[in-house]
Amino acid sequence: MSNAISRTGVQERSRRATGAWILPWAMAAACLLVAAIARADSPPPDSAAAALPAEDGYRLWLRYVPLQGQWLARYRAAATELVGTDTSPTLRAARAELLRGLSGMLRAKPRTSDAVTRDGAIVFGTPGSSALVRSLHLDLDRMGAEGYLIRTVTVRARTITVIAANSDIGVLYGAFGFLRLLQTRQPIGHLDIASRPMIGRRVLDHWDNLDDSVERGFAGDSLWQWPELPDYLSPRYTDYARACASVGINGTVLNNVNATPDILEPLYLAKVAALAGVLRTYGVKVYLAVPFSVPMTLGGLKTADPLDPHVQAWWSAKVDEIYRDIPDFGGLVMKANSEGQPGPQDYGRTQAQGADVLARALAPHHGILMWRAFVYSMSAKSEDRAKQAYDTFKPLDGRFADNALVQVKNGPMDFQPREPIHPLFGAMPRTNLMLELEVSKEYLGQRTSFAYLGPLFQEVLRTDTWARGEGSTVARVIDGSLYGERLTAIAGVSNIGSDRNWCGSIFNQANWYVFGRLAWDPQLSAAAIAREWVQMTFTSDPAFVEPVVKMMMSSREAVVDYMTPLGLVSQMAANTHFGPAPWVAPGPGMPPDWSNTYYSHAFADGIGYDRTASGSDAVADYAPHLAAEFADPAACPDDLLLWFHHLPWDYRMRSGRTLWDSLVLHYDRGVGWVKQARATWSTLAPYVDPQRYRMTADFFAIEERDAEWWRDASIAYFQSISHRPLPPGAAPPPDTLRHYEAFCVPYNEGAVGQTACPPADVSVPR
Amino acid sequence: MSNAISRTGVQERSRRATGAWILPWAMAAACLLVAAIARADSPPPDSAAAALPAEDGYRLWLRYVPLQGQWLARYRAAATELVGTDTSPTLRAARAELLRGLSGMLRAKPRTSDAVTRDGAIVFGTPGSSALVRSLHLDLDRMGAEGYLIRTVTVRARTITVIAANSDIGVLYGAFGFLRLLQTRQPIGHLDIASRPMIGRRVLDHWDNLDDSVERGFAGDSLWQWPELPDYLSPRYTDYARACASVGINGTVLNNVNATPDILEPLYLAKVAALAGVLRTYGVKVYLAVPFSVPMTLGGLKTADPLDPHVQAWWSAKVDEIYRDIPDFGGLVMKANSEGQPGPQDYGRTQAQGADVLARALAPHHGILMWRAFVYSMSAKSEDRAKQAYDTFKPLDGRFADNALVQVKNGPMDFQPREPIHPLFGAMPRTNLMLELEVSKEYLGQRTSFAYLGPLFQEVLRTDTWARGEGSTVARVIDGSLYGERLTAIAGVSNIGSDRNWCGSIFNQANWYVFGRLAWDPQLSAAAIAREWVQMTFTSDPAFVEPVVKMMMSSREAVVDYMTPLGLVSQMAANTHFGPAPWVAPGPGMPPDWSNTYYSHAFADGIGYDRTASGSDAVADYAPHLAAEFADPAACPDDLLLWFHHLPWDYRMRSGRTLWDSLVLHYDRGVGWVKQARATWSTLAPYVDPQRYRMTADFFAIEERDAEWWRDASIAYFQSISHRPLPPGAAPPPDTLRHYEAFCVPYNEGAVGQTACPPADVSVPR
Repeated sequence: MSNAISRTGVQERSRRATGAWILPWAMAAACLLVAAIARADSPPPDSAAAALPAEDGYRLWLRYVPLQGQWLARYRAAATELVGTDTSPTLRAARAELLRGLSGMLRAKPRTSDAVTRDGAIVFGTPGSSALVRSLHLDLDRMGAEGYLIRTVTVRARTITVIAANSDIGVLYGAFGFLRLLQTRQPIGHLDIASRPMIGRRVLDHWDNLDDSVERGFAGDSLWQWPELPDYLSPRYTDYARACASVGINGTVLNNVNATPDILEPLYLAKVAALAGVLRTYGVKVYLAVPFSVPMTLGGLKTADPLDPHVQAWWSAKVDEIYRDIPDFGGLVMKANSEGQPGPQDYGRTQAQGADVLARALAPHHGILMWRAFVYSMSAKSEDRAKQAYDTFKPLDGRFADNALVQVKNGPMDFQPREPIHPLFGAMPRTNLMLELEVSKEYLGQRTSFAYLGPLFQEVLRTDTWARGEGSTVARVIDGSLYGERLTAIAGVSNIGSDRNWCGSIFNQANWYVFGRLAWDPQLSAAAIAREWVQMTFTSDPAFVEPVVKMMMSSREAVVDYMTPLGLVSQMAANTHFGPAPWVAPGPGMPPDWSNTYYSHAFADGIGYDRTASGSDAVADYAPHLAAEFADPAACPDDLLLWFHHLPWDYRMRSGRTLWDSLVLHYDRGVGWVKQARATWSTLAPYVDPQRYRMTADFFAIEERDAEWWRDASIAYFQSISHRPLPPGAAPPPDTLRHYEAFCVPYNEGAVGQTACPPADVSVPR
Repeated sequence: MSNAISRTGVQERSRRATGAWILPWAMAAACLLVAAIARADSPPPDSAAAALPAEDGYRLWLRYVPLQGQWLARYRAAATELVGTDTSPTLRAARAELLRGLSGMLRAKPRTSDAVTRDGAIVFGTPGSSALVRSLHLDLDRMGAEGYLIRTVTVRARTITVIAANSDIGVLYGAFGFLRLLQTRQPIGHLDIASRPMIGRRVLDHWDNLDDSVERGFAGDSLWQWPELPDYLSPRYTDYARACASVGINGTVLNNVNATPDILEPLYLAKVAALAGVLRTYGVKVYLAVPFSVPMTLGGLKTADPLDPHVQAWWSAKVDEIYRDIPDFGGLVMKANSEGQPGPQDYGRTQAQGADVLARALAPHHGILMWRAFVYSMSAKSEDRAKQAYDTFKPLDGRFADNALVQVKNGPMDFQPREPIHPLFGAMPRTNLMLELEVSKEYLGQRTSFAYLGPLFQEVLRTDTWARGEGSTVARVIDGSLYGERLTAIAGVSNIGSDRNWCGSIFNQANWYVFGRLAWDPQLSAAAIAREWVQMTFTSDPAFVEPVVKMMMSSREAVVDYMTPLGLVSQMAANTHFGPAPWVAPGPGMPPDWSNTYYSHAFADGIGYDRTASGSDAVADYAPHLAAEFADPAACPDDLLLWFHHLPWDYRMRSGRTLWDSLVLHYDRGVGWVKQARATWSTLAPYVDPQRYRMTADFFAIEERDAEWWRDASIAYFQSISHRPLPPGAAPPPDTLRHYEAFCVPYNEGAVGQTACPPADVSVPR
């Protein structure tokens, strides 16, 4: 019964969430073509199961499994030989990747040659490195430093494919782009592809600590084996760089934003330089996060005041030192005056003044500064935390250096399953703004939940700030097209660790993939990217691809439903951020804006945080058009309702249901989705190797229990406040609220040294 | 120059350390045979390099690579079909392993059959599961519950091999034993092998925390993915169990001896039960470490006094609860009254009284208790710490329950590169004593050093306690043969983690292997085991095996030389235990017996800790014969000299050198060994795949620098006290003592949350 309700709900929602209505027609047509043709190379499901060897996920989407049937013949004819120079490490990497990919898919190594000798040759290079490419007079000017062309051309009566770019890294990107065509079963006989990134710096932020742990990482230890660097360079570094390059990621912040001074010690800078040496070949620049106080802790100065000349000199000298070993070092990341970190405000200076000292040190080396706007005070305040970053940074618009970016999280809170966009995206036209997304699923179920973040990222990028009227999307703010060409960047908090499968689960890999693809082109559709990823990671058989893409596209909304529906945020367990804890209230060691009741504002009269003019007036931080929509409960989207409004439990929703009934049904719908997805996955075993099938199936079992825990604990808690009966069809929580309050999962890997449970060494029963 | 000196020294030493003089002649003959024949299946080195694909170490010593040449033909003829039932999971595992091993090595899957149909059949089973085995009337009575026979027999004119045991697990051990014969190129045409373990419980202790970290583990995270248990069972659990069974390890303590109460919560017991379900098939029983105070912290009692009836009832109920889900649960491990842990002495009870409450709870279920003797007080005392465990436990001899063992570390200190044996081994004839070794190289260079622990384990096992006159070796104490049949056990602190290669380096795998093999039979030689391991892990080519076994056998002595020669102990950095810090002195937060100067006792008058009658008289804890040897500097072995004696810097050694000169030359010899080993390894590239070659080569580079750091820092420190010139040929430290004191490596993975450096947030230059 509750299942039936849930399914209907999920289907309604998924029409919106898949974004099918914005899928470009060309992509849709290509998908249909793929669907029609792909069956040709899929063995019948019943025989496939036995034939598929176990895979552990290490190869990500770069598996290059042998093709069969007509695709094999078609592609073989179009990939007969490789023609290109290897005058640089990056060009050698391009050739190696083409050889690896084609050898794997075509079951035979193509010949390599210095000149085109036959139809089906693949020529790769830059005008500088290849006389042949130069002779083609391709219109490369518009492709910039990183873009590429893939084009079918005829040279001396031979039909060949050329992969060309202005730079070696562009050629490597083109090589991956070409291989992707084969991996996704696209026709390659008449190619005319021009692709260039829309955003300049496409960066993964690794919140990796130097002691090998990862903050909010759910895939094992740090990828970087710090103790053995710089002497031992794990082969994983190269494979990481390959995977990044395959989706166009061109930067990596190696260490946690909650940084330790040690990273700037010579001991560690040598390690950083060694990593940079590996990553450079694949176009991935290295950045570091640093603490604001490091001129004191490391430099021995009495102050870190950004206006102190000794502090300025210290930063300049330190940055010079970095660039001596790493001439192409990307730059620095700073988290200042946030969550207890020191910052310029400690000295009565503005964030812009704080940023300036680093930006000036970096400028001579063409380095950049990413200055985080995630700023809030740890002291208990009555002020709405959602307004703090806006209030701090908005007045500083135009005050940041040209080589500095203000790095803004997608929402004003902290990477919740759903938030409105951060108001700063519409508020700083004279500042380089960059977007920070979280690829790691800190608040979305962490390692085990099945949550594809493409729809979340897409929702953020496509949201209109209305800053310059309609069409002022977040994507256009950060890709520079709204305010003209400037320094542009996007960051994703990495979900990559030492786990064999890199990301803790197979489907978490899709979030790394979609981050990279959207960073390259924020206009791509999350659904199309999901489809690519599924084809490359598993199979092109539409009997698998179609249901899996559908699951992926609706998965994030299911998490929203069973965790924080209707605009709720931050109801997770303290410290671990795993599992439900809506009852966490302010108290000793728990500042109001770290508590959960602060965000739900659930009382006898209703639920939700009033951010209209009658409340904190955070709506006023948005452009008038948006503010008007958000401020009116009747106009505000349901899924942000309780973020902006405190409403009576019996408030009548658009659906005709009361707010209370709707809330309950959302929780139930989320659980229903998980049950249904689990059932769907169980029918897909014939298409997947046993190891990846099993892990995913078992993780669904875990998520089903977690989703029920979320629903039951949340309903038990909110019902204790609303005192209303459950709507028909909704099952009551099987346990008491006291039970849920007492239950905790003490440890999780992303919360090093923190627990969600009371201390175990107190002598009280738990 | 200094190199030449070192090599001479190493060669002198390696004659002793290899233990070649005790290699049984039969083994030596077999080795020669292997050496003679193995060339037949090795391609010439220069072609081999190109042919060897990269390996990442995951397969450990169970690689089963295809054989070539004459061995292939010989073994194929002797392995034509597999005959055995699969009436239990363990027998299915035996058949699967034989199929995997033979298919891999013989390049073809042997046929399986219900009956012998040809020469070369391999029959496996128990008299109970196989009528054929029963009909052979093998003398299985003497093989016990875990032993096995492998015998060539003729059945109805057919020559076959039978692998037989009294139990299914014995058959599995036999299957691994049989495969090892092929892996090490032994003739299998006329087999008559009877093998049974000498020690009953052969246990790995995982110091794994529930937050995924590992205390003193240098191979990544915990192997156990606690958050995903019990739902998701990583395939690694099965491969771990296979590897354990292949060397006869039959128990695993899943969690850190510094235990948290959570492990006994129902949430975690369900996870433990799921792991037990996987490991059971491979004969590996699960044990847990528990804190003494858990009746209070978890049970809510007011006391943990072992004589309190409520405490006794609580333990009984908790143990009953464990056995409900895990009927074959192995038992419990307790670390009480040590390093700040609570214990019975907090209530004025003896260690035996503390043990009794757990032992009685376990007894009805046939569970055992491993009660650690690593007991010392954290309060500053003048008493010699080396005596504390003896003083505490010796008076309690005979007071421990029949199902309890007192678990004694190999030496009285704490897993140092070299210590004398623990005096308790000769002091508790009426107590079940078990030996605890550390497989993880906490004090021997951790992940990166090349240190094969076989010689250390062998040295301990073969040391004579003289408790019942000559021949009262530690091995005979713990295998029960000295005092008659009793409960016997041995434990090794695991070096296994989530790293792809399990142990952090390829050569660290040898320490897991040798621990298991010596636990099965403490009389085996470390050199023979090294040879087996090298053959199974790399190649049987003697051009590789001979130099590598030689390096392995001398490697631990090299670590002793460059870290703590001549009986020094505990000179490592505080907290991390990595790198030299001989200057660490008592002070705030540093109790005397955690400091390093406490152990070196280096003053102007000389160096070393006087444990003779004129000092702490710890020598008196040993049997008179041993005590007399240790107490006389002229009789005391050089390598324990400074453990037992405080001697003038100019004391004249047996070599004719002064103590000071000898000390310096030992450091230098250790460094020389590393340089030489690194050079040797570089010549072996043709025999190793590139990935394992590279990691080992790079780790040697790291170890060379670390060894030089040890030597230079140690000499700089001790010379500041001895005020003596360096002997001819010894190079002076390139930096000042102040430099070495200031240098620190802040993080290492086994010291979670601890650092070797002063806090970074103090505003002083470092």
